[in-house]
Amino acid sequence: MKNFEFYNPTRLVFGKGQETRIGELIVQKAGSDANVLIVYGGQSAKKSGLLDRVIQSLKDSNLNYLEFGGVRPNPTYEKVVEGIEIARKKGINVLLAVGGGSVIDTAKAIAIGVPYEGECWDFFAKRVAPLKALPVACVLTIPAAGSEQSQRIVISHKDRKLGAGSDVVRPFASVVNPELFFTLPQKQITAGVIDMMSHIMERYFTQTEHTDFVSGQAEAALRCIMANGLKLKKDHTDYDAWCQVGIAGSFAHNGFYGLGQVEDWACHGIEHEISAWDEKITHGEGLAVVTPAWMKYVWKENPKRFVQFAVNVMQIKPQETEEKTALAGIEALKDFFRKMGAPVTLRELSSEQPDPLELAQKALVIPGTLGNFKKLGEQDIVRIFELMN
Amino acid sequence: MKNFEFYNPTRLVFGKGQETRIGELIVQKAGSDANVLIVYGGQSAKKSGLLDRVIQSLKDSNLNYLEFGGVRPNPTYEKVVEGIEIARKKGINVLLAVGGGSVIDTAKAIAIGVPYEGECWDFFAKRVAPLKALPVACVLTIPAAGSEQSQRIVISHKDRKLGAGSDVVRPFASVVNPELFFTLPQKQITAGVIDMMSHIMERYFTQTEHTDFVSGQAEAALRCIMANGLKLKKDHTDYDAWCQVGIAGSFAHNGFYGLGQVEDWACHGIEHEISAWDEKITHGEGLAVVTPAWMKYVWKENPKRFVQFAVNVMQIKPQETEEKTALAGIEALKDFFRKMGAPVTLRELSSEQPDPLELAQKALVIPGTLGNFKKLGEQDIVRIFELMN
Repeated sequence: MKNFEFYNPTRLVFGKGQETRIGELIVQKAGSDANVLIVYGGQSAKKSGLLDRVIQSLKDSNLNYLEFGGVRPNPTYEKVVEGIEIARKKGINVLLAVGGGSVIDTAKAIAIGVPYEGECWDFFAKRVAPLKALPVACVLTIPAAGSEQSQRIVISHKDRKLGAGSDVVRPFASVVNPELFFTLPQKQITAGVIDMMSHIMERYFTQTEHTDFVSGQAEAALRCIMANGLKLKKDHTDYDAWCQVGIAGSFAHNGFYGLGQVEDWACHGIEHEISAWDEKITHGEGLAVVTPAWMKYVWKENPKRFVQFAVNVMQIKPQETEEKTALAGIEALKDFFRKMGAPVTLRELSSEQPDPLELAQKALVIPGTLGNFKKLGEQDIVRIFELMN
Repeated sequence: MKNFEFYNPTRLVFGKGQETRIGELIVQKAGSDANVLIVYGGQSAKKSGLLDRVIQSLKDSNLNYLEFGGVRPNPTYEKVVEGIEIARKKGINVLLAVGGGSVIDTAKAIAIGVPYEGECWDFFAKRVAPLKALPVACVLTIPAAGSEQSQRIVISHKDRKLGAGSDVVRPFASVVNPELFFTLPQKQITAGVIDMMSHIMERYFTQTEHTDFVSGQAEAALRCIMANGLKLKKDHTDYDAWCQVGIAGSFAHNGFYGLGQVEDWACHGIEHEISAWDEKITHGEGLAVVTPAWMKYVWKENPKRFVQFAVNVMQIKPQETEEKTALAGIEALKDFFRKMGAPVTLRELSSEQPDPLELAQKALVIPGTLGNFKKLGEQDIVRIFELMN
């Protein structure tokens, strides 16, 4: 195991009705003269009455606020820049995201952009690491991205979709009320379940040895997400199932499942190019296509790890050979994605088809190689695209 | 599942050689004019050279410090009061614990005592909750109590051993270097393994339903601690095994394994009376005696939970009846304690025997009843004592 540092100071406030406490949580952190920018997406937060409840909570705490709506899925840098300008002009000192990963990431990007003198895109182009940020709070409406506890931000700019982050962008408080998830369409439930599984699997598939504790935690979390994901497919209003998925999704990306090990992140890297190529593609659905293809391409790099995944996560009985067990595990994962209603091939994902070489080249612009379980070059990624059909 | 709040801002700094970073960690939190009280135990921290390395790190960061040694196992309130007086007199503003749970708890108690005008014991007698504390950092030398990430403090005073705590006492930084554990005697390894298991089991045995996520995490953690505990019994210098036990022990008591559920804590309550009655008794060894007895007494309150424990944690094949499976699980746990070399009866624990009724009455003085899985009264505790033989 490698040395590691873990610092996750987000106050997670979980359960029914907790969004009404957001004003109080902001006052505790930033004082009663906080000036809040409420970042949100489309009309659903307004129509559902959630935004009204959040605003009422700010009013009850006598807080100043300004609304900043219109964040879209695969959130754009343009929107971030707009937010930074407004925040500077209006003297905003707290960001409050009311939404899913796209909204939270936009709020986080504004939070690092406001105190930074250069172009905010510098952080995403890896020219500089964020060292300062305005405090960010969240009320989560889609469990998926794990951004409510994570140190990560993903933003799209022109045809790139890139990540940035550091501990300074972790929200200081995140409200997760599973009742807010009841009205999500199946497509988003499915994509969310797959995204949070991917956050764990990107860490689980490591070449670092002697990681029993974290691996066991990851395996149990993945089994739990799958079991409860299937319950939600039957009943979108199963509060108890949402509780499990809500906690799991929130811890999936806070770093816990990667303690002391080299993480991979090739699937996220490839998928980000796919959803940057066609912004209508939902990240979690893209991951459902990329992940099994990546697995089929890399399992030989460490067959024992894939056997462990097959047996301990997918609950496959060991077959005659490691290869058969490993491949059966990958097929079982693909079957689970299918059962959740996810696309599992590129053709199911999109009627048009991307140019694999072009996307592979883009994916490699900044990192040089992609992933760590196997360090992928251009031709590796092209071959992974071939396995997506 | 119940609503919950989770806030765990401890910076966990884990791995080889990390104790040399303690000066830098203190400066990051408290600035370069921090005035540090180094709290430690007996001679082992001096002899091993650890204290020298820690002091060198403080010197490298140009920090002022004062040594405060002599904390004993089952740490006393008298020592806490002495520390509070010195800290006030010398203008101490950071506590640095170099030791195990007893040392860390002493540092935490001093940390809440210094800014409090009344008697520090008020916090333990539950007359008042700690709202302010000096910042506390740790360099852990015994993985067991989990105090390096927890919000809890346990202190002995006359013949009582009581707990206090709140989020303000969580250390801001904890260094866990598994190499520091190589020289621990088997007795402390065993007691530590059992104490951390107990921190998870006190939460796992709950009547709260729909806690699949947390239960699955707890089951995996318990299996991992047992597997690696046995490895350590064979080789005290197995770094990889210590890593697993070190992480597990640190997360075991930070609240993660109790998210959204009513916790129990009867075994800790009873054991604290035993080690308050005879301060030579090690807490973890006491728990090895109390826990199986408590289990045998309460399993009928929720047989399904004990069957789940037997199958998922102790890896017992389901027997013909729930009762047989549940009892086989309890026996398997007791066998594991025996394999680790722990006492499993009161007679093995101590040559003298306590008066069960007297200890039961003491255990009930403040809470009224003990535990939640089954709320125990005086006669319940007496009967649990009978099952300890």
